[in-house]
Amino acid sequence: MAHIAFIGLGQMGTPMATNLLHKGHHLRVYDINPTASEKLNALGAYVATSPKDAVLGCEFIITMLPNGKLVNDVIFGNNGAIESINRNSIVIDMSTIHPLESDDIRNRLRSENIEFMDVPVGRTSDHAISGTLLILAGGTKEQIEKASPILLCMGNKIVNTGGPGNGIRVKLINNFMSIALNALSAEATVLCESLNLPLEKALEVMEGTPANKGHFTTTWPNKVLKGDLTPSFMIDLAHKDLSLALDVANQLNVPLFMGAASREIYSQARATGRGKQDWTAILEHLRNCSGLKDD
Amino acid sequence: MAHIAFIGLGQMGTPMATNLLHKGHHLRVYDINPTASEKLNALGAYVATSPKDAVLGCEFIITMLPNGKLVNDVIFGNNGAIESINRNSIVIDMSTIHPLESDDIRNRLRSENIEFMDVPVGRTSDHAISGTLLILAGGTKEQIEKASPILLCMGNKIVNTGGPGNGIRVKLINNFMSIALNALSAEATVLCESLNLPLEKALEVMEGTPANKGHFTTTWPNKVLKGDLTPSFMIDLAHKDLSLALDVANQLNVPLFMGAASREIYSQARATGRGKQDWTAILEHLRNCSGLKDD
Amino acid sequence: MAHIAFIGLGQMGTPMATNLLHKGHHLRVYDINPTASEKLNALGAYVATSPKDAVLGCEFIITMLPNGKLVNDVIFGNNGAIESINRNSIVIDMSTIHPLESDDIRNRLRSENIEFMDVPVGRTSDHAISGTLLILAGGTKEQIEKASPILLCMGNKIVNTGGPGNGIRVKLINNFMSIALNALSAEATVLCESLNLPLEKALEVMEGTPANKGHFTTTWPNKVLKGDLTPSFMIDLAHKDLSLALDVANQLNVPLFMGAASREIYSQARATGRGKQDWTAILEHLRNCSGLKDD
Amino acid sequence: MAHIAFIGLGQMGTPMATNLLHKGHHLRVYDINPTASEKLNALGAYVATSPKDAVLGCEFIITMLPNGKLVNDVIFGNNGAIESINRNSIVIDMSTIHPLESDDIRNRLRSENIEFMDVPVGRTSDHAISGTLLILAGGTKEQIEKASPILLCMGNKIVNTGGPGNGIRVKLINNFMSIALNALSAEATVLCESLNLPLEKALEVMEGTPANKGHFTTTWPNKVLKGDLTPSFMIDLAHKDLSLALDVANQLNVPLFMGAASREIYSQARATGRGKQDWTAILEHLRNCSGLKDD
Repeated sequence: MAHIAFIGLGQMGTPMATNLLHKGHHLRVYDINPTASEKLNALGAYVATSPKDAVLGCEFIITMLPNGKLVNDVIFGNNGAIESINRNSIVIDMSTIHPLESDDIRNRLRSENIEFMDVPVGRTSDHAISGTLLILAGGTKEQIEKASPILLCMGNKIVNTGGPGNGIRVKLINNFMSIALNALSAEATVLCESLNLPLEKALEVMEGTPANKGHFTTTWPNKVLKGDLTPSFMIDLAHKDLSLALDVANQLNVPLFMGAASREIYSQARATGRGKQDWTAILEHLRNCSGLKDD
Repeated sequence: MAHIAFIGLGQMGTPMATNLLHKGHHLRVYDINPTASEKLNALGAYVATSPKDAVLGCEFIITMLPNGKLVNDVIFGNNGAIESINRNSIVIDMSTIHPLESDDIRNRLRSENIEFMDVPVGRTSDHAISGTLLILAGGTKEQIEKASPILLCMGNKIVNTGGPGNGIRVKLINNFMSIALNALSAEATVLCESLNLPLEKALEVMEGTPANKGHFTTTWPNKVLKGDLTPSFMIDLAHKDLSLALDVANQLNVPLFMGAASREIYSQARATGRGKQDWTAILEHLRNCSGLKDD
Repeated sequence: MAHIAFIGLGQMGTPMATNLLHKGHHLRVYDINPTASEKLNALGAYVATSPKDAVLGCEFIITMLPNGKLVNDVIFGNNGAIESINRNSIVIDMSTIHPLESDDIRNRLRSENIEFMDVPVGRTSDHAISGTLLILAGGTKEQIEKASPILLCMGNKIVNTGGPGNGIRVKLINNFMSIALNALSAEATVLCESLNLPLEKALEVMEGTPANKGHFTTTWPNKVLKGDLTPSFMIDLAHKDLSLALDVANQLNVPLFMGAASREIYSQARATGRGKQDWTAILEHLRNCSGLKDD
Repeated sequence: MAHIAFIGLGQMGTPMATNLLHKGHHLRVYDINPTASEKLNALGAYVATSPKDAVLGCEFIITMLPNGKLVNDVIFGNNGAIESINRNSIVIDMSTIHPLESDDIRNRLRSENIEFMDVPVGRTSDHAISGTLLILAGGTKEQIEKASPILLCMGNKIVNTGGPGNGIRVKLINNFMSIALNALSAEATVLCESLNLPLEKALEVMEGTPANKGHFTTTWPNKVLKGDLTPSFMIDLAHKDLSLALDVANQLNVPLFMGAASREIYSQARATGRGKQDWTAILEHLRNCSGLKDD
């Protein structure tokens, strides 16, 4: 059984720490809110007086905090972990923070010969309770192997995201996409309902199309992802159909802010000469606009 | 074998008419561009001099045209179909046009005791050639039964969209969603690439989450679609994660127009009191903003 | 006194026609809604039965209609003006319609040797009543001279917009700018109010800055409009200040859809290498994105 | 002559401090970059080794730094100003920082009985050199009186923004409006140019309309600002004209991201029942969407 410091006992941290205790690990817990520790204390955790106190003698230091500034503070601030940490321990940050802040923390720890992993989690607080979180592990192969027994107390699936820093990056991209997509799906649905079309009817069709299956694994692999921009469905036609939908929405007073923005992206792609390319060339267009590559 | 008028011989219409001929039907074809008819003439089609001429003696009149104005013109304009159409025939409009224009045409034909179906198609021109289009049939059950043998010459799957007008509506919603989603997916991807994260790594995770699986069949059915807005994942947290992604993008000069618009939608939802509701409540929020229902 | 056909007797057309009558001109009026003509009939106007009837013997044909399709119909449709118009008359379209539709009408009339002017109006229906509209005259110098006595019965200022087609173009640009600016001003104001800052205090400062004076005549003339992009205020700094405002707004749940879109425009400008240029270089950036010119 | 600490010697800070020296004040300067102080040292400033050292014996402490975190650090961090500051001195923060961070600093200083003013500046680095900055003074009447002789060494106009915290708030709003307006003006201009209309012609008209004069002092004072929403120009009509412009832009491939967002705002206003109100009611609409007030 491992000796683990657990810092950050919020809605996610508390059940995660509880599961570690249930699996028999020795925990030293810390939270700025002293009452957060009580329940864990009752389960056998030592309640530390500071991050510095929490990490004493621990092999793993887990942080689960609201933002990167707090992660930084508990490690490097007054009475921070850095003041008494074992040099052979691993700091595992499971928070969702800014990737560049996460990189900074890794680099700063490395200069002190301390290992760091970025291991945010997926799914919900219910999964935290049942120990079935999705673990997005960022770190070296060796680090992930070493940490897996600990991580699997909190989740039931570990994804090796391919290297240090990738865990927090994958989390960011996944959440961006799923959260923005939620709003876009709502726009499509209110347009559907404004046309008196039952959503189930639309879903019957969309189930088999990129509208619900997404593009990453349907239209993109054989086109833009392998550099083929010959049109299966031209940007000009996509622009036309999108404009038709916006006209209808506009007539029905259905505001579609994301839809409207997407139309302007297609207009911009046309303006820069991509009208006759496949619609997946929108990715190439955005790469150009992001300075990722030149035309 | 049926007698069919086919009006509109473009990139989609020509292969569709060809497949009808191959299956042995008698075709009278018309297009404003006279050369478009030549190939079909060689295959045995009668080349009509006007829509009025095309529909003579036909049971089915199929239109496949770029917009609703043209559909209207070939039916009701000078030398239009209406001047010689059989009263027991069905007009099947397979174009992608404005749903309210489609409704107008149906109503106007109904007043002349002529039947009308809106039957746009899904998939690409390659599928038109191979006769494997997706047929989105809008009409009564009887109409769809009667037209099915004809429609199955052009496609390999018919979806009964649930009533007259629903075919064109489903097409509109599906295309809106898939075309806008294409651009949103590109935004997520350029952010991914700007963070030096390989897209495949992100996809490994997104494959199992709403980011790629969509929300319609994952997060929504047990929440907003049955009126339960208690949070699995709060709008406040979704807003926080989205803001984090936008901050990162902004720092890396990755313009995310759709992502930015989506964040303002979440802000608006919070401003109107939905911060502690489930993120699927964005749908309820947009319903309120669209005048579909009151708070 | 002139013989004038006036077609379109809505909220604007009725008072405009009334003023022409008051100045002693002979009017033949037409509207699809027959009751619209009654008031003018009482004032001495002849009520025509069709556009064809209205234009009989007239030197000037004025149209004031909701959209280009209707303007087209009253001129070229059944019983349209074209059927009995004098070849030496001028058609003056005072409607706000699509510029390219306006061009089409001009070209079509020109091929019939009939003159056409696009002369939309500015200001409100109150000004239509008092005869103080702003007249945006599109046409040749000769046409404007010839029409001025008529136009000045309806407005008190004529702007020669520089040529045929420019009248309707100026109207479009002016309305785009003022209507969108209205919404942007509202965004700034709700942010102001959310910060508990009285708008009057903000106005005291903004009165002397581009925030209220605009950019066209302040920051642009010595910079981007003469091709000088050396920075007085760098795009990078504008982007930073704008991001600060959006962060504040976001924290206060003030949705700023236009502000958010503008930030992404600045991000895109930075991504394409303009960060160290003057902020007025945003115009150059948008020119590139619109295909107006290459980098 | 006053004893002044000046912390932050960047592109703005250096000329501002230089002007204070030229007027005969005694300066103690500090910057994390040691070379930044050299020029001021040559002009007679004492170069401090820390903020703590800089404030020794000073009546005024001026900070001119890139962000609120740095302002906080130089005051409250290690070797910060707070460690040796005179209790009767005033801290004058002239940076552009987050208003809520500025409030925090004021409150924290107040609890130590130290006065604080937020006094950001307007105009450019050229004005900093010539001592003609616009001074946006946030503070009590007494504070502004006391600080004015110092401030007028750096600028030629002081605006009393009406109270503590208002200086930084006015700056934020002014910059939001002017920076976003710059991008909106560019959108209008590329649409203008795409229509082959010279900008000067459009400006001739816009000079006299809200398009260039803004709304704050033209259309708003007699309408929404005094609660009168009876229409001079209806939201429905503004929406129509805006849609016309967007259609034209779309046809010409001119992407108008801000214009597109503004149209959706008008759609939303119509959807929530404001179609027949005056266009200035957009402000009321956004107030509702921001949670500032209920319908």
